[in-house]
Amino acid sequence: MNLIIVAPEEVEPAGTVTLAGVRARHLTSVLRVALGHPVRLGVLDGPFGNGVVTALSQDTVTLRCRFDDVVPDPPAVDVLLALPRPKVLHRLWAQLAALGVGRIVLTNAARVERNYFDTHVLDPAAYGPLLIEGLQQARATRLPQVTVHRQFRVLVEDHLATLSGADTRVVADPAGRVSIRNALASAATSRQVTDGLPARRVLLAIGPEGGWNRFELELLANHGFRAVTMGARTLRSDTACVALLALVHDALQDVALPRNA
Amino acid sequence: MNLIIVAPEEVEPAGTVTLAGVRARHLTSVLRVALGHPVRLGVLDGPFGNGVVTALSQDTVTLRCRFDDVVPDPPAVDVLLALPRPKVLHRLWAQLAALGVGRIVLTNAARVERNYFDTHVLDPAAYGPLLIEGLQQARATRLPQVTVHRQFRVLVEDHLATLSGADTRVVADPAGRVSIRNALASAATSRQVTDGLPARRVLLAIGPEGGWNRFELELLANHGFRAVTMGARTLRSDTACVALLALVHDALQDVALPRNA
Repeated sequence: MNLIIVAPEEVEPAGTVTLAGVRARHLTSVLRVALGHPVRLGVLDGPFGNGVVTALSQDTVTLRCRFDDVVPDPPAVDVLLALPRPKVLHRLWAQLAALGVGRIVLTNAARVERNYFDTHVLDPAAYGPLLIEGLQQARATRLPQVTVHRQFRVLVEDHLATLSGADTRVVADPAGRVSIRNALASAATSRQVTDGLPARRVLLAIGPEGGWNRFELELLANHGFRAVTMGARTLRSDTACVALLALVHDALQDVALPRNA
Repeated sequence: MNLIIVAPEEVEPAGTVTLAGVRARHLTSVLRVALGHPVRLGVLDGPFGNGVVTALSQDTVTLRCRFDDVVPDPPAVDVLLALPRPKVLHRLWAQLAALGVGRIVLTNAARVERNYFDTHVLDPAAYGPLLIEGLQQARATRLPQVTVHRQFRVLVEDHLATLSGADTRVVADPAGRVSIRNALASAATSRQVTDGLPARRVLLAIGPEGGWNRFELELLANHGFRAVTMGARTLRSDTACVALLALVHDALQDVALPRNA
């Protein structure tokens, strides 16, 4: 736990926060805080802030906090993910939140097994704490938004544009002929020509074990998804998710540099 | 299983291979091969090849194979990894092999708990099958070489140069000020000036949960490791491994491109 995250409703009007449970134990047993010690924290989907320990009991830690005025932007990447096996998805939640995604769009696909949808891993009560665990690991506050869709075609044709405001869409495909970096760079170039360009968001589509089928790849291509490749090695879907997100974030930082320089 | 891997001793002189167990069941139950069907396979630490099914029994599949003359090079990345928790390491073996590493150098560090060394996960009989699982996933044949070291300083000062012939050394460090891509690019530039240089290998050092301590970072710096960063987010060590390896492989491909073009 590298950042203590509190829910907005846990912050009292004067900026007082009283923690119990895992977070209190982390402060007392791992960080060994004492009265007057500073603690860095963040409000879920809100700003970062600094607290000072004002009271300690057996089970609770009370902090007086000041929070920043600015709320950080959500991560600039959304993922469209063919629903993985429950065990894999369970492992992925915290990693997705830690790597940074604005939105997680889970979808059916031809090679997704129907019973994957029956898992409790899709219950917000199950995945919410895992997402927050990822945020606390990565020192981030913006909670990924999650939706689950059973009809791939309806999702892509009717809902995806509303769900993700990404200006650039890529789909990971072993048959892709361009790297993520080059796909984002050329998208940036063409956009500068056409509209001079504001912020940039990427929607990254990741298929099931076994891949998207031909119909799905064509539908994605017809909706602006460019096929990108990571090289010759076929990765397990959770490994691929982490690797692809790292590459997209890295490429986005590079694309952003000329504007910041 | 995207590639059937066989041990060298399983190949009889005439090129006949008889499979039983998991690999035979994969061929009969998942791929549903019949007599005369082609099967792609690879020899562990050896060449790729093509087989044809010549006999099928309840439990075995017999193939007549021809193997390529060339053995693929080992992956161009080695990792120096502070020994993770057994549970994390167990998850990592197959992923490391799938992403592609030539050598895995596991080491003690100040923030590695001593009892991590007592785990059966460090037994070749335990990790060997997991590494091969990763190769079969990624369609690769070169098995990562693994060594375990209990004395970090002795390792870095006396053994590391022999273990890894990497010409470029980087250490992941949140305080690093340069991206992996830029570190590799500037290493390539300076090497072209000094020695004209052919192949390029990278040794990537990844610390324990909580990071390397100051002594360790200085020792690494004094032995040619340049600090590289992935950005502001702190990742769990298994997530960081996958993300960093993806970035190094991606950067190596780009560095390699001008030579191939």
